[in-house]
Amino acid sequence: MSFELVAECNGARAGVLHTAHGDVETPIFMPVATRAAMRAMEMWQLEEMGAQIILANAYHLFLRPGDELVRDLGGLHQFAGWDRPWLTDSGGFQIFSLADLNKVTDDGVQFRSPVDGTSHFLRPEDSIRIQNNLGADVIMAFDECVRLPATPERVTGAVSRTIDWARRSRDAHERDDQHLFGIVQGGTNFEERDRCIEALLPLDFPGYALGGLSVGEDRQAMLDTVVHVNAQLPQDRPRYFMGIGKPADLTDCIARGVDMFDCVIGTRNGRTGTLFTTEGPLNMRNARFRRDETPLDAAGASPVGRRYSRAYIHHLYKSGELLGAVLGSLHNTWYLVDFVKQIRRSIIDGTYSTCASSSSSS
Amino acid sequence: MSFELVAECNGARAGVLHTAHGDVETPIFMPVATRAAMRAMEMWQLEEMGAQIILANAYHLFLRPGDELVRDLGGLHQFAGWDRPWLTDSGGFQIFSLADLNKVTDDGVQFRSPVDGTSHFLRPEDSIRIQNNLGADVIMAFDECVRLPATPERVTGAVSRTIDWARRSRDAHERDDQHLFGIVQGGTNFEERDRCIEALLPLDFPGYALGGLSVGEDRQAMLDTVVHVNAQLPQDRPRYFMGIGKPADLTDCIARGVDMFDCVIGTRNGRTGTLFTTEGPLNMRNARFRRDETPLDAAGASPVGRRYSRAYIHHLYKSGELLGAVLGSLHNTWYLVDFVKQIRRSIIDGTYSTCASSSSSS
Repeated sequence: MSFELVAECNGARAGVLHTAHGDVETPIFMPVATRAAMRAMEMWQLEEMGAQIILANAYHLFLRPGDELVRDLGGLHQFAGWDRPWLTDSGGFQIFSLADLNKVTDDGVQFRSPVDGTSHFLRPEDSIRIQNNLGADVIMAFDECVRLPATPERVTGAVSRTIDWARRSRDAHERDDQHLFGIVQGGTNFEERDRCIEALLPLDFPGYALGGLSVGEDRQAMLDTVVHVNAQLPQDRPRYFMGIGKPADLTDCIARGVDMFDCVIGTRNGRTGTLFTTEGPLNMRNARFRRDETPLDAAGASPVGRRYSRAYIHHLYKSGELLGAVLGSLHNTWYLVDFVKQIRRSIIDGTYSTCASSSSSS
Repeated sequence: MSFELVAECNGARAGVLHTAHGDVETPIFMPVATRAAMRAMEMWQLEEMGAQIILANAYHLFLRPGDELVRDLGGLHQFAGWDRPWLTDSGGFQIFSLADLNKVTDDGVQFRSPVDGTSHFLRPEDSIRIQNNLGADVIMAFDECVRLPATPERVTGAVSRTIDWARRSRDAHERDDQHLFGIVQGGTNFEERDRCIEALLPLDFPGYALGGLSVGEDRQAMLDTVVHVNAQLPQDRPRYFMGIGKPADLTDCIARGVDMFDCVIGTRNGRTGTLFTTEGPLNMRNARFRRDETPLDAAGASPVGRRYSRAYIHHLYKSGELLGAVLGSLHNTWYLVDFVKQIRRSIIDGTYSTCASSSSSS
């Protein structure tokens, strides 16, 4: 088995996912390096903050520089200088959300490249081939993600395709050293979620993702769906909530048995100036920080938070200095990685409770 | 004396400049943090590369966040989290080059703030007060820099003002813990350079800058002027060539007795994709690097050069990834700091020769 449960506490789980490039300790926050590049931090900074696995995106790398080039240069690990575990997204979500000119059929998706305007047709088999070429340790089935709210017909159609494409993804997958995860769709409709899970379980994926959540539904419906889905997923497989990362969401989803997370919120907020701290998120452009000599976050784990004053960080954003985005992204990513790491520790040493965790969230 | 000569070899000098925040070993390349922020690297990265002194600009910091705010927050050292030596430029050069709406009189310079459109009149006394507030270890006299080519009258007028403003700068200077350097102007006109030096020497500055060079004149005229000026400057004071930084220029100016350098070329080229290497500068956008698995610069000191392949760096620039600018700026700055450090070592251990240094330049 590639996944071991180490501890459970009040519904939260701590585990280890074994991969070809090392162990991943769950629950875990996975920084997003879409084009095999974090925006904007060096790989050794990811090592310093204790990141164990990072994400890249099959769609973006297929378009540029090309998955075959990455394969020829030794795969993502060698190409990008990160020798620890990688996870690649299948590209489905990006095609549906980024490519305007797309046509979805039962066979796959037609879209136009924003890089050079060329037309492409991507089937589940193509996504898996691309991900085999990129060589990540965890790869994802090709699925159809529906933004909410959506009509019941839309959700049902997407679930049917997701089931069919999951089977085709598994059949196309050629590398034993990569874990292929299945993805559960179905919006906030429990019956559709059930239908998806029932069809996926016989395929025996080494891990399952909760897809199609945090895409427009209200928060309580999202959390209820997490509970409903997790109750039916096997205990001995990791559960990955795709695309969520606010501290409060991490806390609440870990409490409901989710093991893996990714989100661009750390780097995106880092560029705009909203920084996570142990006191909650702060908008560093706010004039109240102009003369604030307090360190950004003296109690936090990030060296940015301990070294730089709020007045200085404020100055960087107000002056449009690139260093603001750089420090902010580094700080936020460090914060999120460490935030989940601390929750993991508390699950293992038995001090975890949902209340204790919630109080430090935002 | 604040400056000690440690070694001389074939015209090149190695020395130590003592400052209130530590020693500066010359010759030295000083990275430029215009708004008290490197574009775009953390202060601890400057420490790791062995940078000993960095620059900020009085003009930019006067406009935003204001020199009094920086003073109130403990000066540049405390404000920006760099506790080693700082040098501030007087702001004259920036007013002449960046502020379109300016009027120069013998008393000072009128200009309009590009930040908020407000009008300001800056006299030598104001520049020194601003620099006293910022608190750098080395500060510069307020001078008038003339772009070349220029009429003889224009050069003569600027030298006369520079002489008058140097005296006024010295008289206005109030802090014993800051070294105020004089600036020699005069274009490539030796008589005007001589007139400027003769007037400055009695003011007994602890260091002298070669200003108004690398501003449009041809290279040989620049180097001849360096030789002419340095022959008349006292041996026991550091000589600072403002605003130059290409490896070949550093090599040739060190060979002619210059001790200190600053330039934005490392970070500027880092953003556009021209990276310094021990094989010479490389334009990383060039298609020939697309599949080049060679490390960027395996023989160099920069960890960027040793860790990342040329293919990956090429991918970053071609994809417009912010990480390209970040890695490129870090790499180039590291390269320049280390490049001058190696020359210093060779001067001290006696292996220095102009030929040996020139062969590794570009």
